[in-house]
Amino acid sequence: MFMFEKPQGMRDTLPDLYSTKEKIRSSLTDVIKGWGYQLMETPTLEFYETVGFRSSISEENLFKLLDHSGQTLVLRPDMTGPIARVAASKIKKQQHPLRIGYSANVFRAQEREGGRPAEFEQTGVELIGDGTISADAEVIALAISSLKNAGLKGFQVAIGHIGITEALLYESVGDREASNRLRRFLYQKNYVGYKEEVYTLPLDPEKKRKLLELPELRGDMDKVIQASSTLLSEEGKKAADDLRKLDEILKEYGCTEHIKLDLSMVSHMSYYTGILFEIYAENVGYLIGNGGRYDHLLDHFQAGAPATGFSIRTDRLVEALHISMEDAEIEAIVFSEENRKAAIRLADKERMEGKKVVLQDIRGVTNFEELEISFQNITYLTGDGKEEKNG
Amino acid sequence: MFMFEKPQGMRDTLPDLYSTKEKIRSSLTDVIKGWGYQLMETPTLEFYETVGFRSSISEENLFKLLDHSGQTLVLRPDMTGPIARVAASKIKKQQHPLRIGYSANVFRAQEREGGRPAEFEQTGVELIGDGTISADAEVIALAISSLKNAGLKGFQVAIGHIGITEALLYESVGDREASNRLRRFLYQKNYVGYKEEVYTLPLDPEKKRKLLELPELRGDMDKVIQASSTLLSEEGKKAADDLRKLDEILKEYGCTEHIKLDLSMVSHMSYYTGILFEIYAENVGYLIGNGGRYDHLLDHFQAGAPATGFSIRTDRLVEALHISMEDAEIEAIVFSEENRKAAIRLADKERMEGKKVVLQDIRGVTNFEELEISFQNITYLTGDGKEEKNG
Repeated sequence: MFMFEKPQGMRDTLPDLYSTKEKIRSSLTDVIKGWGYQLMETPTLEFYETVGFRSSISEENLFKLLDHSGQTLVLRPDMTGPIARVAASKIKKQQHPLRIGYSANVFRAQEREGGRPAEFEQTGVELIGDGTISADAEVIALAISSLKNAGLKGFQVAIGHIGITEALLYESVGDREASNRLRRFLYQKNYVGYKEEVYTLPLDPEKKRKLLELPELRGDMDKVIQASSTLLSEEGKKAADDLRKLDEILKEYGCTEHIKLDLSMVSHMSYYTGILFEIYAENVGYLIGNGGRYDHLLDHFQAGAPATGFSIRTDRLVEALHISMEDAEIEAIVFSEENRKAAIRLADKERMEGKKVVLQDIRGVTNFEELEISFQNITYLTGDGKEEKNG
Repeated sequence: MFMFEKPQGMRDTLPDLYSTKEKIRSSLTDVIKGWGYQLMETPTLEFYETVGFRSSISEENLFKLLDHSGQTLVLRPDMTGPIARVAASKIKKQQHPLRIGYSANVFRAQEREGGRPAEFEQTGVELIGDGTISADAEVIALAISSLKNAGLKGFQVAIGHIGITEALLYESVGDREASNRLRRFLYQKNYVGYKEEVYTLPLDPEKKRKLLELPELRGDMDKVIQASSTLLSEEGKKAADDLRKLDEILKEYGCTEHIKLDLSMVSHMSYYTGILFEIYAENVGYLIGNGGRYDHLLDHFQAGAPATGFSIRTDRLVEALHISMEDAEIEAIVFSEENRKAAIRLADKERMEGKKVVLQDIRGVTNFEELEISFQNITYLTGDGKEEKNG
């Protein structure tokens, strides 16, 4: 029956993948720390009323349970909510801007096996209390710098602005329900469905033209900002101006080769309020990270402050990197009882030199063939001589 | 209401503690890896039938929830069960002995706030498929070596043997229920209660004397083994012989200064089957780790194999170390728009040198006094000059 099984979407990380993941996580957090962000950890379980309810993960994807007193708990679906809770409750507002990093597992209940993981690691940052475009640029440049340090090549950061997209949608359609329908198509990146929907709307040709051009507003930053400027209302123009400034700063950071604009970008994360972005790796069919500005989330914790951040899916980054797992390069010293003391001394010495050394009583070996497959180098201290063997 | 609250026993790990914990965790896992153990990770959620039910954590301390199909899941209460599941299902028995390490959070539901943590980190190892005393000695020596590498001084590893204690209790009392009552007193280390209970038992004076001496069988290894040898049945003598061999090997490892024998040691972990141990730090009133042999747990996964291991409570080790948290030593560069490019270059350069540098747009600063308290060193690139200031 259940003997060897794991709950749906739950995975084991065996040693080879574990050590690869560990290296990649460090290559991200090294840069994050270098940029002055401080890592922290929050509990796996939070109150539904505090964090679950305010997360933008849909109800059916939340793992819920009841505590002893009947209150609903959730396994954290992301880290942004918990860090906002900490920032609001434990850190004085005068200490803003606040730079917090994390690398932690988050949870999303899955309906079917073989699908998405129900637990996965996110590595990311939150920059709280700084509403400048410099802050938006910083988190994007930091995401790019982290990914480069992890060895990722040929990735794209698609940047959008919720202000432009919302303005264009709502101002052209003038109807919340219809603009929500359009937004859903854009979120699914179903541009055919989007265009068909636009044709059915009772709008004048100029408005339809604007709406139909929206999915084309993707690609080179300069070109797209220019194109969009002919389309937008005053509010949208202000947002386009933000994007122009962002582009200028990202040029100074020297990371524009990874940047593309995408004004059709909307997010399932309803709390984004400004510049937002999605990170794609070449030859990998899914997001490896995303982020953006969320200036209203802290309001829920009675500590209103502008904020922006990103998170990278460590598991997907590992896949995107196509790293060939290395052998752990562990040596073995196999000893018989009379050589035990000498074996302990030898292992001590080699471990001091930084080697990884298994010390194995020969009576504990069940299969010598497997032993020789498992280790690159085996030293036998058995009997009176010393025999070295490469397996 | 719930705004800033966390579920009972749940804690935030703020940056200073996080980085201290990170260092201490590495000092343990560096040694664990050096001894040829490979780290792995298992899911936070497991089926109750697979892991929860077989764990020795009492039902009311398990966090339980239902999945979409109505099956009961638990938040893992320890790592030994999950690793046994992986060893049984994913790793061929020929590959034994298997050396697995971990550093992971485990969960214990708590009734009251202000008490024990409901989520805490354990760092440990499992050595599966080796029934020799060398394996028992290895995990004890590894625990000691790891703790020394973390900087812990003046700690004691109290070693017992379930075989001796069980034999003595059951053979003297001859009654399962009465010996269980005595065991419970020993587990609580309530020696007064234990002795009072012994007096009430309808036993002959010689048996009472043996039982009354049991709590005294603690202290120096040689002395206690010698004393116990006059007390024990054949089965107990075999176990005492194991302990003598263990002592001999631990002398070769050079770690006997940390060793004490305690034949009154019993465990709430009902799966321990042989040598077991508890680790105490000076001036700290609780266990910082424990371990022992559990030769029957793998049977439950239809993959019977002898096994031993230990786990260290990372949080308690941090407390026992009395480390004064260091400042993160982060510098700041505060810039105005016209100096932004120069500020980015300077930050780049300093980060390349390994410094931790916050780059801050002056327009994003909310409180300059707090800014100067927060950073040891602030470089202002504002206006036409360059002013350096130490806050």
